Amino acid sequence: MSPASIPHPEAAPLEDTGRLCIHTITTRPWSLEDAVRHYPAAGVAGVTVWREAIEGRDPAAAGRLIREAGLEVVSLCRGGFFPHPDKRGRHRAIEENRRVVDEAAALGAPLVVLVCGADPAVPLPEAREQIRDGIEAVAPHAAGCGVRLAIEPLHPMYADTRSAVNTLRQANDLADAIASPAVGVAVDVYHLWWDPELESQIGRCASRERLLAFHICDWRSPTEDLLYDRGLMGEGCIPIRRIRGWMEAAGFRGFNEVEIFSTRRWSQDQGKFLQEILQAYLKAS
Amino acid sequence: MSPASIPHPEAAPLEDTGRLCIHTITTRPWSLEDAVRHYPAAGVAGVTVWREAIEGRDPAAAGRLIREAGLEVVSLCRGGFFPHPDKRGRHRAIEENRRVVDEAAALGAPLVVLVCGADPAVPLPEAREQIRDGIEAVAPHAAGCGVRLAIEPLHPMYADTRSAVNTLRQANDLADAIASPAVGVAVDVYHLWWDPELESQIGRCASRERLLAFHICDWRSPTEDLLYDRGLMGEGCIPIRRIRGWMEAAGFRGFNEVEIFSTRRWSQDQGKFLQEILQAYLKAS
Repeated sequence: MSPASIPHPEAAPLEDTGRLCIHTITTRPWSLEDAVRHYPAAGVAGVTVWREAIEGRDPAAAGRLIREAGLEVVSLCRGGFFPHPDKRGRHRAIEENRRVVDEAAALGAPLVVLVCGADPAVPLPEAREQIRDGIEAVAPHAAGCGVRLAIEPLHPMYADTRSAVNTLRQANDLADAIASPAVGVAVDVYHLWWDPELESQIGRCASRERLLAFHICDWRSPTEDLLYDRGLMGEGCIPIRRIRGWMEAAGFRGFNEVEIFSTRRWSQDQGKFLQEILQAYLKAS
Repeated sequence: MSPASIPHPEAAPLEDTGRLCIHTITTRPWSLEDAVRHYPAAGVAGVTVWREAIEGRDPAAAGRLIREAGLEVVSLCRGGFFPHPDKRGRHRAIEENRRVVDEAAALGAPLVVLVCGADPAVPLPEAREQIRDGIEAVAPHAAGCGVRLAIEPLHPMYADTRSAVNTLRQANDLADAIASPAVGVAVDVYHLWWDPELESQIGRCASRERLLAFHICDWRSPTEDLLYDRGLMGEGCIPIRRIRGWMEAAGFRGFNEVEIFSTRRWSQDQGKFLQEILQAYLKAS
C-alpha cells in the first residue's frame, strides 16, 4: 500500500502552545528584544530567527538572549538564492550560504531554511541544476557544523525570482539526489496546500528523517498582494489541520511555526496580534 | 523511451501570423465590432470570443460577423466553475455549462475552454470530484453539439476561487478518467511554465488527440497583481518558444492564442497595443 492510499485523519486540535514557534518576521515591527520579552509571556515555546532580526549583531549573543528568555531556537531563515546568470554570482551565493551556516551554528540554530532562488534570466531547468550544485557545495560545511539545511519548496508564483523549487516532489527529488544527512525539506502550507501530491510527498519523507520543518499561515480570498498578504490561521482556505495530520502521520514531532508576512498585520498593535496568533493557533491549526 | 526523455528543440521563430489568434479580452476596451475590424487588417487569423464580448447578443449573428470579417472562431471562453458548497449550486453550474455549449454551437466555435472552478468553502479533493462530475454531465451534450471541452489547468495561485485543477498532469488525469471524445486539455503558458513536468505532460497528450488549445502571454517580474498584470510575449521570463516546441513535437498544429489580462495594457491605445502584439508574436513567441 503506498503512503498516498493510507487514509490519514485530520490532526486533533492543539491543546497547548508547547510546540508553537513564531518567526521573527511575523511580528516584524518588534526588535529581537521585544520578541523575546513578549513571546514567552504568551506561552510561545520556540522562535525561528530571520537574519534581518540579528543583522549587525553577534549571533552567539542573540542566541543566548533567546535561550535565557526560555525560548528554543528552531531555525535560521534564510539561506539559498543559488541561481545566478554568471559563475561569479553563483560562487558568491555559495560563500554567503557558508556564512549563513556559521551564523546558525553561532546562534545555536540546528537548521537553516533554504529559499533556493530563481532568476528571470536563468531558465528553470538550469536554475534547478544550479540549486543542486549550490546545496551540494554547502552541505559538507553544514554537516561539519552540526547544522541541517531544509529545502523549502515555494509557491509557483515565486518561480521567477525566489525559487525554482516549487513542489514537495521536487524538493524530495533534490534531497534524494544530494543524499546528504544534512539535507532535508521544509513544508509550508502556504506554498503547498494546492498540490494534489502533497499528502503522498509528505508520506515519502516518513522513513527518511528528512521532514525538518512545518510552517503555517493561511491563504486569504482574495489575496491582494503576491508577497505580503498572508492570512492568520483560520482566515483562509488552507486545511491546516489536515496537513498537520499528514505531517504527524509521517512522524513529524517538531514545532508548528507561524510565519506570516502581512503589511496589514504589521501595521496593527503587535501585542494584540500576538494574542490573535495564540487564539488562531489553538482554534484553527 | 518516455516522452520526457526525448529532447525537443525550441520551436523555430514564427514567420507569419497565419496561426495567430487573439482573445477578445486581450483588447477588452474594444467592442466585438472594433475587434473584427482591426484584427484582420493587422493579419490576425483567429479569434477566441469571451462571453462578455457577446453578452446580450445573438451568438449566431456574432459568429457571422466574425467569419465575414475573415476571422476563424477558435473557441469560446469560458465554461466551468463547477464546484459549489451545495448541490443546487452545482446543478446550476451544469445547466449554465450546457447553455455555454449551446452558445458555442450557435457562434460556430468548435471549443469551449473550461476554467474548472474552486470555492474557498469546498476542500480541493471534493472540488476536484465536483469538477469531474460536472464535466461528465456536460460532455454528452457537447459531443451532440459537435463542441469540444478543453480543461484548462490554472496557476496554483487561483486554487482558492478559480480552479482546483492546477497542473497539466491533473488535467490529463481528469481527461483520462472522463474518457469522452469531447474532452481534452488547453495549455496556457502563464499557468504552467513553472511546472517541471510540463514537457512530459504535453508529450502525454501526443497520441490522444487531446491537446486542444495553446494560450500565450508572459510572466512579468515583478508581477504586481494576481489577476491583471500579465505581460506581452517577451516582457517576462516564460520560455514561450521552448514550450511551443513541445506543443508542436506533440503534434499540435492549432492557433497560438494571445490571452493577456492587463489593466496597464487596457489603459493604452488598443490600436497601438495590437501592433505591439504583432511584433511580440513574431519576435518572442
